[in-house]
Amino acid sequence: MESELVIYNSLSRKKERFIPLLPGKVGMYVCGPTVYGDPHLGHARSAITFDTVYRYLTYLGYQVRYVRNITDVGHLEDEQAEQGEDKILKRARLEALEPMEVAQRYTNSYRKAMRSLNVTEPSIEPVASGHILEQIQIIKEILANGFAYEVEGSVYFDLHAYTHIYPYGQLTGRNIEEARNGSRNLSNQQEKKHPADFALWKKAGPEHLMKWESPWSWGFPGWHIECTAMSTKYLGLPFDIHGGGLDLKFPHHESEIVQSYAAFHQAPVNYWMHNNLVTLEGQKMAKSKGNFITLQELFSGDHFLLEKAYSPMTLRVLMLLAHYSSPLDFSNQALKAAESVYKKLMNGLALLPQLRSNEDQGSNEIDQEILTLCQRCKQEMDHDFNTASTISVLLELNSWMNKISKNDQLRPALATVEQLKNTYHAYVTNVLGLLPESQADERLASILDILINLRNKARQEKNYSLSDQIRAELANQGIQLLDSSLGEVQIKWE
Amino acid sequence: MESELVIYNSLSRKKERFIPLLPGKVGMYVCGPTVYGDPHLGHARSAITFDTVYRYLTYLGYQVRYVRNITDVGHLEDEQAEQGEDKILKRARLEALEPMEVAQRYTNSYRKAMRSLNVTEPSIEPVASGHILEQIQIIKEILANGFAYEVEGSVYFDLHAYTHIYPYGQLTGRNIEEARNGSRNLSNQQEKKHPADFALWKKAGPEHLMKWESPWSWGFPGWHIECTAMSTKYLGLPFDIHGGGLDLKFPHHESEIVQSYAAFHQAPVNYWMHNNLVTLEGQKMAKSKGNFITLQELFSGDHFLLEKAYSPMTLRVLMLLAHYSSPLDFSNQALKAAESVYKKLMNGLALLPQLRSNEDQGSNEIDQEILTLCQRCKQEMDHDFNTASTISVLLELNSWMNKISKNDQLRPALATVEQLKNTYHAYVTNVLGLLPESQADERLASILDILINLRNKARQEKNYSLSDQIRAELANQGIQLLDSSLGEVQIKWE
Repeated sequence: MESELVIYNSLSRKKERFIPLLPGKVGMYVCGPTVYGDPHLGHARSAITFDTVYRYLTYLGYQVRYVRNITDVGHLEDEQAEQGEDKILKRARLEALEPMEVAQRYTNSYRKAMRSLNVTEPSIEPVASGHILEQIQIIKEILANGFAYEVEGSVYFDLHAYTHIYPYGQLTGRNIEEARNGSRNLSNQQEKKHPADFALWKKAGPEHLMKWESPWSWGFPGWHIECTAMSTKYLGLPFDIHGGGLDLKFPHHESEIVQSYAAFHQAPVNYWMHNNLVTLEGQKMAKSKGNFITLQELFSGDHFLLEKAYSPMTLRVLMLLAHYSSPLDFSNQALKAAESVYKKLMNGLALLPQLRSNEDQGSNEIDQEILTLCQRCKQEMDHDFNTASTISVLLELNSWMNKISKNDQLRPALATVEQLKNTYHAYVTNVLGLLPESQADERLASILDILINLRNKARQEKNYSLSDQIRAELANQGIQLLDSSLGEVQIKWE
Repeated sequence: MESELVIYNSLSRKKERFIPLLPGKVGMYVCGPTVYGDPHLGHARSAITFDTVYRYLTYLGYQVRYVRNITDVGHLEDEQAEQGEDKILKRARLEALEPMEVAQRYTNSYRKAMRSLNVTEPSIEPVASGHILEQIQIIKEILANGFAYEVEGSVYFDLHAYTHIYPYGQLTGRNIEEARNGSRNLSNQQEKKHPADFALWKKAGPEHLMKWESPWSWGFPGWHIECTAMSTKYLGLPFDIHGGGLDLKFPHHESEIVQSYAAFHQAPVNYWMHNNLVTLEGQKMAKSKGNFITLQELFSGDHFLLEKAYSPMTLRVLMLLAHYSSPLDFSNQALKAAESVYKKLMNGLALLPQLRSNEDQGSNEIDQEILTLCQRCKQEMDHDFNTASTISVLLELNSWMNKISKNDQLRPALATVEQLKNTYHAYVTNVLGLLPESQADERLASILDILINLRNKARQEKNYSLSDQIRAELANQGIQLLDSSLGEVQIKWE
């Protein structure tokens, strides 16, 4: 299989032809959610981006092992007002729960949201707390290789020792003086040799509920080490693709690279991919700023910034209408536009069975246009997963489909129509992951419409026995028809 | 809260009043699936049994921490033809997959089946491979206390040493000579001091893909130790309720008890509960016997023993129609009976909004009968979760509801009707976990029936313009009506 797929590699800062390490197989690791809160738009963008990458690679015939982790060990971040406070621990205290019970609840809520977005389950979904032993082993390697030091039961990565041997900043171009600000505001900063050094293992204070035994102390792993442990365990070293949000590029992904060199003397990943972030009126979403929307709020419409509820498929289309590497500014206007694109794409799916072909011969010019558009779907996706252009090509195909279904004179050749059907269906459903929502509900509404129109016609024709019969039979099914004074019919469900 | 709940405790072999360790709180651990195959009827029975226990305890007002594990570490069993073959490893080889990828696939398939059965997600769902460190720690304790020995990198539980201090067989009444046959046919039997000794840690051979570093060897934990590690980690020691299938009582649960005494000098659990098994024509289900039905086969009807497909809710009712401690013989007849009970219970739910009361005064005798039945729901559930009797009481209430809704003279007092509505709704949906299935699909079928009947009538009356119009409008919705030679109408969905 000669790949025509081109990926923008954050590491080389270039678009590169994708060549997997093993022919026909791809190993891909993506940083999943930290489960200390409800899934939000940022989670959705990362998940939908790499779900689409996974879907397209699979569509191309690759056998993909897709690992997406769950970070259930609480970590320290500058955002937290109190120093040394473990995020999950803090929430657990607030709710008087076992930390793992909180993590499980939010893991469930994340998985549920992903199902509604038709995000495929990854091949392996490892949790950080389930790989403490593997993390300890890599920390031991890094210590043995002289790239880490222990102080009072904690282990820190030694960036000065590292930069004597390996170049720092391969991914982000930063040097360790610039990296200084990236180090999280852990307690016991004075323990570090250099302010940019980061924790591989932290000794737990008595206030920490999540802790494990290690050669150094009862404590917990630093944030970066979990992804090194889980990616190499399930994908080997190096592996093909590592994905994640742009906000994880530094310090998280830069640290994964140095950890890999320090432990195994080699680069971990061939292709680094980063999805851009979701902004609200140009600003980064943040709980502290109040411009923060969870997926549940979006699907229910229950947020002061939302004019109405938007469905999971509408959100998926919104995300795919931007290139993953561009910022996505979130607004009601953009959502309504996405909703309308989604409806068009679904109407196209419904049209497919009705498309008729000319057994003899097609109009060569039209056939050629349609076949070119079909090829362009692959070309656009091959071009660094350009979902936005793919959708516009699908909408062009859609408009041809409408013309063909309405005009008996317009009949492409059988082979053209078959190609059109296959391409449209595969790219809309398999590659972009878009499905009709609540098909049964939609059919119900359409069939109910037939009955209501029949009844209206019967009433106009003064055939009251028929109109009364329809009303009575619907009432038996718990559906009341209420005739308004304006002559319109309202439906009341029991 | 004075509990009136009585539980049959497998440990004391008596029915006992349930008194939790902490007032108002319950810790419950249930042995979950081994994820090396598709979920089957046995999984469903255990999950539905303890889901109902969890639901009822929650309904009574307890705050329940419900832990149900996933066994993703492969274990050795006599059923496997080749000695020393790791179950999951074997499947992984066959499919040329990473063992954790196989485990993830079957974990996903188990979770999906549980959702369709309306089985609540447990508070914590720990996986065995994620608690290796915790298992190693308990093995260290057991070794330090003199109840285990190491041979060639493997660690075995020393039953002779144990029986000098503690009585063996608390749960099953067996002595260690009888227990001999329960020890799995591991490789290296000659390493053991006594044939009934069981492995706490096994050194991995080169053929094992799943292995971890330990003080004794690169290897993997024995089967029993995972539940001791995960239950005590999340619920403390002792905890209130431990559940599982009767097939796990020996050797698994007996071993959990000895491990707890050996490591912590105390009993792990106050109340042991065991659900009985599902049989097919009196025989234990087993893949080797060919009388083995997976949940997917049941829901699709795709199995030679099934006359048709049965829905998840039908299966749930079937399970609840037997007491959890009785064997459940599985047959098409029993399933059809369960289906009819399910429909009655759902029809009752639909009736609830229509029940009218007498504002002035009810018939005292009828009111008394209804209120007594309402109380009996709690009495039956309090009596060791007697779901079968609870359902028969609900059906009696159901028949009253039918009488009341059809007879204007029969009007209980407002308070009686409110009690009836609350009790019926709570016990059917919250306690027994029964919900309407695919309401939209059912409505669609009923409304389609109305249209088809209208069309048939129109044809009989030779009103072909109306019958043709109905056919054409349905065709627009992708629904074709095919008139058979016998005058019947078939529906073909596009």
